Amino acid sequence: MNDTLMLTIAVLGGTGKEGKGLAFRWAKAGYRVLIGSRSPEKAVKAASEIMELLEGTSSVVGMANPEAAEQANIVVLTVPYAAHRSTLESVKDSLKGKLLVDVTVPLVPPKVSKVQMPPAGSAAQEAREIVGEDVEVVAAFQNVSYEHLLGEEDVACDVLVTGTSKKARGEVLRLVEATGLTGWDAGPIENSVVAEGLTSVLIYINKQYGSTHAGIKITGARNQIPESE
Amino acid sequence: MNDTLMLTIAVLGGTGKEGKGLAFRWAKAGYRVLIGSRSPEKAVKAASEIMELLEGTSSVVGMANPEAAEQANIVVLTVPYAAHRSTLESVKDSLKGKLLVDVTVPLVPPKVSKVQMPPAGSAAQEAREIVGEDVEVVAAFQNVSYEHLLGEEDVACDVLVTGTSKKARGEVLRLVEATGLTGWDAGPIENSVVAEGLTSVLIYINKQYGSTHAGIKITGARNQIPESE
Repeated sequence: MNDTLMLTIAVLGGTGKEGKGLAFRWAKAGYRVLIGSRSPEKAVKAASEIMELLEGTSSVVGMANPEAAEQANIVVLTVPYAAHRSTLESVKDSLKGKLLVDVTVPLVPPKVSKVQMPPAGSAAQEAREIVGEDVEVVAAFQNVSYEHLLGEEDVACDVLVTGTSKKARGEVLRLVEATGLTGWDAGPIENSVVAEGLTSVLIYINKQYGSTHAGIKITGARNQIPESE
Repeated sequence: MNDTLMLTIAVLGGTGKEGKGLAFRWAKAGYRVLIGSRSPEKAVKAASEIMELLEGTSSVVGMANPEAAEQANIVVLTVPYAAHRSTLESVKDSLKGKLLVDVTVPLVPPKVSKVQMPPAGSAAQEAREIVGEDVEVVAAFQNVSYEHLLGEEDVACDVLVTGTSKKARGEVLRLVEATGLTGWDAGPIENSVVAEGLTSVLIYINKQYGSTHAGIKITGARNQIPESE
């Protein structure tokens, strides 16, 4: 048994469809998964829904966001952008020395198909400003159609992984692999604007070309998780 | 014969490999192509090199950037970012009512694998600020390995087309089609940050995964040029 699988992952905002899909895939891969929410009741309900899909073979537990963050090694943020700052503020004391995976896309309704980044440059860079330098921040999973994650099907969308260190990106590339998707080390946290902005581009393409789950694939390179430094 | 093919395209900075590759494909498709450069001599030389590749079946002429811009219907900018502003200033009086296609990526050496956008948000948005509202600006072709354009081979990289109007993006989608590549209407000019930033991501991926021409493909949508409004 791989040591990695003893890690506990907290999925904050895990009651939404994005978080549920990721939680399902990670629990299925053997990780211990905590579902966090502002409402502990909703978190418990979402956890039991995921457990049902998994037919009881794995461990998924629901609780309030701060408790989930406290108990986890890796904290994954899957909240709407409007709740990005407040959720981070509510858990930042539990994050020191941990890995934060930010899935947030700074969509600004109603123009969600237009890229509109916050002053920090991207949601992930904003997260880094909020949580401070003691926390590694990695941005990932912004472009995946989460409906697909809750099923067994292959998801035809690669994951661009950007973040504050190569080591942290390597850890998240393993999490990507555990979901069955293909991840790419896409460089420093400043590059997160590409993956976050791409969500607006894909929403635009869906609207324009009558599709529902446009994604991207990297071509011309052989995918292989790079060695950690 | 299609009316489109009577259009004249000026490729400013067309002596570089990016510009030459595009000029070659467009001339081959039947467009009249002008190669622009700060040095008219270099422009003439590049034009004759392209004519040789084409075996004399098409029209490619070299001249100074301002003359090329003056004589063209569509002006394509393929200069290094350091020459972006000065080239635009040198031709802006010729651009009114025309279409400007900006291929520029705001790479900041030596960290070319880190996204570093100008204050305007992207090179294309900066171009729009310089040339003013009388010029339609479309960003495209930032992610293609131009070595491939000078050959006959298929290029496994899609082109994200963003710009100031749907009509202008539609015109550029036809130019993309003429090069043999697949283009996607990727939305308003603000979305150009994604394609420009993606170049740094692809440079990073090339370095990290030992490839030389990483690209992207859009998945999950059927490509079809949308009707103009």
